[in-house]
Amino acid sequence: MTVVECVPNFSEGRRPEVVDEIVAGIAAVPGVQVLDRQSDATHNRSVITFAGPGEAVAEAAFGGVAAAARLIDLNLHEGAHPRFGAADVVPFVPLKDDDMAACVGLARELGARVAGELGIPVYFYEEAARSERRRNLAVVREGGFEGLREAIGRDAGRAPDEGPPRVHPKAGAVAIGARAALVAYNVDLETDDLALAKSIATAIRERDGGLPCLKAIGLALDDGVQVSMNLTDHRVTSMAAAYAAVAERAAAAGVAVRRSEVVGLLPEAALVGIAREALRATGLTQAQVLESRILDLVLAGGAEGAAP
Amino acid sequence: MTVVECVPNFSEGRRPEVVDEIVAGIAAVPGVQVLDRQSDATHNRSVITFAGPGEAVAEAAFGGVAAAARLIDLNLHEGAHPRFGAADVVPFVPLKDDDMAACVGLARELGARVAGELGIPVYFYEEAARSERRRNLAVVREGGFEGLREAIGRDAGRAPDEGPPRVHPKAGAVAIGARAALVAYNVDLETDDLALAKSIATAIRERDGGLPCLKAIGLALDDGVQVSMNLTDHRVTSMAAAYAAVAERAAAAGVAVRRSEVVGLLPEAALVGIAREALRATGLTQAQVLESRILDLVLAGGAEGAAP
Repeated sequence: MTVVECVPNFSEGRRPEVVDEIVAGIAAVPGVQVLDRQSDATHNRSVITFAGPGEAVAEAAFGGVAAAARLIDLNLHEGAHPRFGAADVVPFVPLKDDDMAACVGLARELGARVAGELGIPVYFYEEAARSERRRNLAVVREGGFEGLREAIGRDAGRAPDEGPPRVHPKAGAVAIGARAALVAYNVDLETDDLALAKSIATAIRERDGGLPCLKAIGLALDDGVQVSMNLTDHRVTSMAAAYAAVAERAAAAGVAVRRSEVVGLLPEAALVGIAREALRATGLTQAQVLESRILDLVLAGGAEGAAP
Repeated sequence: MTVVECVPNFSEGRRPEVVDEIVAGIAAVPGVQVLDRQSDATHNRSVITFAGPGEAVAEAAFGGVAAAARLIDLNLHEGAHPRFGAADVVPFVPLKDDDMAACVGLARELGARVAGELGIPVYFYEEAARSERRRNLAVVREGGFEGLREAIGRDAGRAPDEGPPRVHPKAGAVAIGARAALVAYNVDLETDDLALAKSIATAIRERDGGLPCLKAIGLALDDGVQVSMNLTDHRVTSMAAAYAAVAERAAAAGVAVRRSEVVGLLPEAALVGIAREALRATGLTQAQVLESRILDLVLAGGAEGAAP
């Protein structure tokens, strides 16, 4: 059973009734669980988080994209966040470490369907990208709706991966992708030395030659300092590896770790990764976790009567 | 949502058609997932593992006990394992660390129902016991079916917690309990020194004054030695604490840990416990784990139409 999360961003954060209809388009699919919804009026943008069996999640994503295309007119949209579509970005996130390829497949199938049935041009990004250049969402979305509207027919480099070589007059375009689950992970240190936290962040982050798939900054807290991190792929750099990297450098400066914390949600696979590394439990698999087994059985049973 | 596991043992391991009917009595309850079944002909005994929302699991346990009472005659039963009932022991196991009290409640309700509807005397054990003495299953089951048949009416100390003061003529009695999930956890050492593994096992196990809720023995492997452990309550002594206890003592003898391993299944809460201890993520909760959230939502939705 492929259990997948999807975290689409929609260009509407001021009219709750519109967001309600988009959520309804997602939640209508049996087997899909809506985990979270957040709207931001300044960005005029909403993020919906839902999960379930892969095919059901893809069906629900289509329902959300279709509702957004029906209800949002980008010509009337203003907000601080870059955007080029009514449904702007649709990332599929595998919850199990082996399911990235399945998520790429779901992204590609959804893209073909959005282009074919809704007439919206589609760009694949991150793991679902068809070229190295388009892995980067900023490249795909460059110039936003207004910029792409001009460039899409003139610049061969901006041609969509699926669909017509022109933006949808009201819904624009959509970026559909696959990526690993993000883990927001912080390690607090027993010191007020902000320079130490900043120097550790610089030393360990990918941008400055540190650990791959790790972003980090140093921050001051009320009761110490923090190395605040984003793990963009816990399969590459785990929470245990990130913790060890911070703890070792802090210890070299004579500073202890006070605590660490996960901000928001994390996939069970990240916990399995911690056990593998911190306890050298190299053979441990997610299939040994009772909740994972139960969820697989429940979803396999419940999906029998589900669409598509 | 209370997600509960139940691992009843039945006194039948030779007639698969009987075990099939018992499993059918369990699996008939909507929302219940049968995770495993194991039969042992020598012990003439079967262990069924199932899980789901608490009320559904209790209903399914009753179905299994009723089927066993209908199909098994203890007067005809022989096998190596101690037993005093057709359904011999019925433990409820919380998957979330906070749900032990709920499991005790399920055990007590099931006991009242088994006594009332099936006329079988019931003994509560472990966390569900009504007296300290009866926490111990061996005390409750002393003398087996044949012994209890004689003692139950004569010895006030053997009076059941629920039901008549005589064994059921064919189904005997049943022990119903609540206990933490067991984790079978081994740490392998980079040495052939079996004496070291045995001395570490002795030093860390509860029986000899070591860590609470930890059992341990030292074993020889093909490629080294192993401290083989059972964690009877990971909330008290976690996998991380057990690993650290072995690793520190091995290091003191100049020996490194090769790997550790979980045998069989483990609850997600045990993984959360590892992160809390090994990464000092003291505030981490299971509610932050995506799979746990999804399972709660799925079970809450799916249970609407289910029987209590």
